[in-house]
Amino acid sequence: MRFEVTILGCGSAVPTLNRSASAQYVNVLERHLLIDCAEGTQLQLRRYKAKFQKIDHIFISHLHGDHFLGLVGLLSTFHLLGRTRPIRIYAPEKLRDIIDLTLHGFNNKLNFEWQLRNLNFKNKELIFEDNLIEVHSFPLKHRIDCCGFLIQEKERERNIKKDKILEHNISLADIPDLKRGADFTANNGDVISNAELTEDPLPARSYAYCSDTMYSDATIVAVRNVDVLYHEATFTSDLASRAKKTYHSTAKQAAEVAAKAEVGKLVVGHYSARYKELDKFEEEISPVFSNYVLAEDGLKIKL
Amino acid sequence: MRFEVTILGCGSAVPTLNRSASAQYVNVLERHLLIDCAEGTQLQLRRYKAKFQKIDHIFISHLHGDHFLGLVGLLSTFHLLGRTRPIRIYAPEKLRDIIDLTLHGFNNKLNFEWQLRNLNFKNKELIFEDNLIEVHSFPLKHRIDCCGFLIQEKERERNIKKDKILEHNISLADIPDLKRGADFTANNGDVISNAELTEDPLPARSYAYCSDTMYSDATIVAVRNVDVLYHEATFTSDLASRAKKTYHSTAKQAAEVAAKAEVGKLVVGHYSARYKELDKFEEEISPVFSNYVLAEDGLKIKL
Repeated sequence: MRFEVTILGCGSAVPTLNRSASAQYVNVLERHLLIDCAEGTQLQLRRYKAKFQKIDHIFISHLHGDHFLGLVGLLSTFHLLGRTRPIRIYAPEKLRDIIDLTLHGFNNKLNFEWQLRNLNFKNKELIFEDNLIEVHSFPLKHRIDCCGFLIQEKERERNIKKDKILEHNISLADIPDLKRGADFTANNGDVISNAELTEDPLPARSYAYCSDTMYSDATIVAVRNVDVLYHEATFTSDLASRAKKTYHSTAKQAAEVAAKAEVGKLVVGHYSARYKELDKFEEEISPVFSNYVLAEDGLKIKL
Repeated sequence: MRFEVTILGCGSAVPTLNRSASAQYVNVLERHLLIDCAEGTQLQLRRYKAKFQKIDHIFISHLHGDHFLGLVGLLSTFHLLGRTRPIRIYAPEKLRDIIDLTLHGFNNKLNFEWQLRNLNFKNKELIFEDNLIEVHSFPLKHRIDCCGFLIQEKERERNIKKDKILEHNISLADIPDLKRGADFTANNGDVISNAELTEDPLPARSYAYCSDTMYSDATIVAVRNVDVLYHEATFTSDLASRAKKTYHSTAKQAAEVAAKAEVGKLVVGHYSARYKELDKFEEEISPVFSNYVLAEDGLKIKL
């Protein structure tokens, strides 16, 4: 059951030839999601062989250009490639007019519908769910309204041990209750405990995306115990005052959020274009939080 | 005296990993111009080592996304890299609101001024000139308002033969008249013909950009005798009806325009993404016009 994140761009406001600006493609149980959509995202999706025609949900964290300027181009390409399936966009409300006006420049109507759901910048909110996954947005602390996103599998039902079905002559009709944890009463009146019949399901996995943001205790609450946390690390600590002024984080602060939130793994990215090498990021993170990885374009993270 | 065109993107509406969408960088006598600005142009400028911080004039042919969606990102990058010099944009008027609204999403004012001059879609018009060059726009025939651009050196003054200055004791004050073709009257009253004193200047060079357009006799008039013509060739002739329907040209039609306009060299591009190989383009063009080149991303054309 796949849950995989592909980093499409790990750079920040000024894209470079090695680091595109922010975008991530998430395949979670064959739901195909795009988080942020910087200029050039449609080519990054091709480059890293994402199933980009299957994307049905696009989450835009905020309206700095390095997080959304590729969106109209992507919608246009969907249209030209014959898409008819609707698409849902979760973004700041202002984006609606930007998309409308830009497409109006084209004098062209898309072949498919797009809907935009405004994000809540005050509180955590469930913005999408189906039978298998949930997506929440939660406020980040940036210069302009900005949200992080939390993508979670729903708790799965218990797994029934196959040999017990035969052993106790369990009927199909009984199975849904057992999967939800009920005990089983056999024809002879014996009660067999659920624990004997079933196994714990695989734990529900979770991924949180936090870009762009300065260090914030609220983020720690929002991402507590996630399996993988992507947290921006625009600067190293020698530029901590610049990070604060621009509402960004240092690598050390990203590690502190990961440690305090007790996440499974930390991925950092959104590096300022001034950093060619990332050694200093490693030096800052490793003493604070050991299970980390430095994002690079094309990196795939399996949960 | 450099006059060089760099093809930044030779693809059409759907960009691919091998062919970006439309943009060209022109260095004409150290005037740095950008023609069209598709998504990803700022990276193509870096990739092909254009002096992109020196660009002062941006010409946008029309408002299909593959010709302008990289503009706001480029302006944003200029801003972030500290630009303060103003920039002039020549484009359909609607683009003004698109830029304004998109930048407003950023909540950010650029450090430099930008001015937009609306194009004339009815008649050829001089849209920029300085002491050395002129740029005209001229209408193309496309689904929406669209202009081509003609970039020309001004006629240069005549070159004075250095040995004649000493021989006839010509003063500095006389030189401007001689450069403009006047004869010289020596102190003794002798008249020396200009032809004896000067040589023809190098001919003024010219470049025309025609994308997007269907075949049009008006184009032939507009680009007559240019040294280099870039003409779109979205399709091959087997798709001539599709070319007509979408207001594009076939490779053969591009060659016909070049031949009838008696240009020096033809460059074709704006290929539909369906063409992986370009052999059929060569087959169509070569019988009609021999001095041609097929554009590819990064190609530099020296005039």
